[in-house]
Amino acid sequence: MPEPGGGIAALRTELTVLHQTLVECGLVAWTAGNVSARAGDDAFLIKPSGVPYERLTPDAMVLCDLEGKPADGTELKPSSDVFAHAYVYRHRPDVGGVVHTHSAYATAWAARGEPIPCVLTAMADEFGGEIPVGPFALIGGDDIGRGIVETLGGHRSPAVLMRNHGVFTIGADARAAVKAAVMCEDVARTVHLSRQLGEPRPMDAGDIDRLYDRYQNAYGQRGRP
Amino acid sequence: MPEPGGGIAALRTELTVLHQTLVECGLVAWTAGNVSARAGDDAFLIKPSGVPYERLTPDAMVLCDLEGKPADGTELKPSSDVFAHAYVYRHRPDVGGVVHTHSAYATAWAARGEPIPCVLTAMADEFGGEIPVGPFALIGGDDIGRGIVETLGGHRSPAVLMRNHGVFTIGADARAAVKAAVMCEDVARTVHLSRQLGEPRPMDAGDIDRLYDRYQNAYGQRGRP
Amino acid sequence: MPEPGGGIAALRTELTVLHQTLVECGLVAWTAGNVSARAGDDAFLIKPSGVPYERLTPDAMVLCDLEGKPADGTELKPSSDVFAHAYVYRHRPDVGGVVHTHSAYATAWAARGEPIPCVLTAMADEFGGEIPVGPFALIGGDDIGRGIVETLGGHRSPAVLMRNHGVFTIGADARAAVKAAVMCEDVARTVHLSRQLGEPRPMDAGDIDRLYDRYQNAYGQRGRP
Amino acid sequence: MPEPGGGIAALRTELTVLHQTLVECGLVAWTAGNVSARAGDDAFLIKPSGVPYERLTPDAMVLCDLEGKPADGTELKPSSDVFAHAYVYRHRPDVGGVVHTHSAYATAWAARGEPIPCVLTAMADEFGGEIPVGPFALIGGDDIGRGIVETLGGHRSPAVLMRNHGVFTIGADARAAVKAAVMCEDVARTVHLSRQLGEPRPMDAGDIDRLYDRYQNAYGQRGRP
Repeated sequence: MPEPGGGIAALRTELTVLHQTLVECGLVAWTAGNVSARAGDDAFLIKPSGVPYERLTPDAMVLCDLEGKPADGTELKPSSDVFAHAYVYRHRPDVGGVVHTHSAYATAWAARGEPIPCVLTAMADEFGGEIPVGPFALIGGDDIGRGIVETLGGHRSPAVLMRNHGVFTIGADARAAVKAAVMCEDVARTVHLSRQLGEPRPMDAGDIDRLYDRYQNAYGQRGRP
Repeated sequence: MPEPGGGIAALRTELTVLHQTLVECGLVAWTAGNVSARAGDDAFLIKPSGVPYERLTPDAMVLCDLEGKPADGTELKPSSDVFAHAYVYRHRPDVGGVVHTHSAYATAWAARGEPIPCVLTAMADEFGGEIPVGPFALIGGDDIGRGIVETLGGHRSPAVLMRNHGVFTIGADARAAVKAAVMCEDVARTVHLSRQLGEPRPMDAGDIDRLYDRYQNAYGQRGRP
Repeated sequence: MPEPGGGIAALRTELTVLHQTLVECGLVAWTAGNVSARAGDDAFLIKPSGVPYERLTPDAMVLCDLEGKPADGTELKPSSDVFAHAYVYRHRPDVGGVVHTHSAYATAWAARGEPIPCVLTAMADEFGGEIPVGPFALIGGDDIGRGIVETLGGHRSPAVLMRNHGVFTIGADARAAVKAAVMCEDVARTVHLSRQLGEPRPMDAGDIDRLYDRYQNAYGQRGRP
Repeated sequence: MPEPGGGIAALRTELTVLHQTLVECGLVAWTAGNVSARAGDDAFLIKPSGVPYERLTPDAMVLCDLEGKPADGTELKPSSDVFAHAYVYRHRPDVGGVVHTHSAYATAWAARGEPIPCVLTAMADEFGGEIPVGPFALIGGDDIGRGIVETLGGHRSPAVLMRNHGVFTIGADARAAVKAAVMCEDVARTVHLSRQLGEPRPMDAGDIDRLYDRYQNAYGQRGRP
């Protein structure tokens, strides 16, 4: 975890480690997934495009402005998802980290355009309800970013399933967004498995609220998940 | 394994290793699972809340009394499941270890509120019958612990599927409870797969009894599984 | 691989490595699986009962006669499956290695009592047809061994699915039996997946024969798979 | 990656690493999968037959002419799939690498003889449409190679599902063919999972074209995926 005030060098290292976490958690194949982290008021760091995870180094992370334009003198091109990340940082000042994956179970729900119903206490804890579906959108402009922001605006969930595409998650920092991506795949898988042999029992809306409130405020050390 | 008489330091080390076993066996995502071990007559050790598995150390394990209250001077908060563990230790003097996970296949059964039928010899060996379902209960008080104890009271199974939540297992020591958690996920998966393409053949109740008796008494070195 | 003439010490080492292969290939949970190897005319080596795979050493392997009785002075008890292995060695002089697992996909077929149909060229290569189902049998006497020998007598397959139990495989040596166990789980999984969304296309019996003949005689270096 | 002009020694090393990638990505069991790379105008390198992946060395790779005949003095026999690889190199001068696997999800589609529909943006990116099915063909002559070339001639996909058999992929070099094999299994799995609980939403043909064009031309560093 970057030290408060550790600055951009610490953030580059943190981002490198978090990409490794995506690999270890089985969320990505080949080069198809990326993490970004807000860096100061008007910039963020993101994975370079098409670079294998095992060759990522802190220096390879690309610094971009909030329009997705790389800083002068940058050698590597940013992830082709850079404009979606940029849109989120521009419109959600509370967001410090964004993750994108095509993790298999979550993407299977996304391909059907079906939200994941909240039928697990762990899902109530982290997502506070269902994981919603965002629109189909082509890469390269503001469409994906707008779809993310508009969809998440109506939910407590930090994860959104983009139709026929994959998952985007947000967090107060990059580590929280990675945690949401890991938990999203975990619950996508468990609810998928449960549905294969019948119907999971619905949870009471009041219980979901109580679980969400407790987890967001009391879990972990010093109230931080 | 802790030496007999190795005391609490050995138990802290054992507990650290067993959390690593949960990770290696694929039973936990992020920080969502915990192991505890009875420590003397009126205390137990448990994982701290929200600490990543790779940072757990023997010293980080939290010593609590049987009401779930951490010992004086403890820095880290215990797992938020501490009260469920405490309830089990208070009401089951034969139990020396408790494990909680959200392992995917077992939790898929739990989400449907459906017990896992005993259709495998390995299941008869370890569980002596079906793996039962306990009630839905909110975290933070005695409800989960009471649900565990009341449900397991009527079964030979050391594992219970808590509705819409996950798995709790018990054992004579922490290692035995971890074994039960590993075997629970293994049979939850195999029976799930079998059910996907038809119906597993039921087993004769007498055969289940014979297998259970032999395994509990003759398996392993010196009769200890 | 043991050197020809390397004797029993080499065989103990080989057996230790092969148990590790079972773990790496995901075929076993906890201590539930074992490999044995014929050692001379009237004995075989087998895993000790209930010992975790990571603690297995060459010296821990138990030397037994063909009735399953450990050699004088042996400290560790042999696997509780020892009598099934012994029966196979007594009745199949061509067999030099036996493996037993509860690998998940194969055991899912076994729990339904359903043979795995030969619908893959890789299955024709290794198994020469379907993987058959043997009877339900209790552990501890000759019943399991007899079920294995009688079932495999009518098939080219080196693997048999024992009802509600798991898989036994045989081979000219222990390594060939482990290969059969790995391939059995691999095809059990692939055919399972294929069946989940429809019906795999049947293969022509003549094609199965041609594939089996070629693979058994021409594959690998010096004709040895 | 081999240095341009690094010659055949660099290619042998690259091929050794790429076989390790197949193992790490879970695409192969035991010895059942192989990679080849064009070496100059009239030759290619391929895995030796039946050699375990962990024992592969650069020197073990077998140099063959475009009829699949090993160079004079070669000790090890080439993969029994050598004639399929050779046929592809003879008829597709644009191909620099070929991969064959029995990866489970893709082979499950192949066993049903069912193409994988293009319902994911990642699939449009890499495959430009569905992944097609080729004919059933026996090993050992030109039939498999001809089936691959004829089927891929009508598609943008670098992957083909050979009926009741497995996957072949092609690429400008061996690394690109391995990438196609990894992505083929990834999308085979995701679409399989999606179909298990309903129907994935179809994608618009124009959107597939736009995604394919962008990915082939703009993704990665210097336009190279």
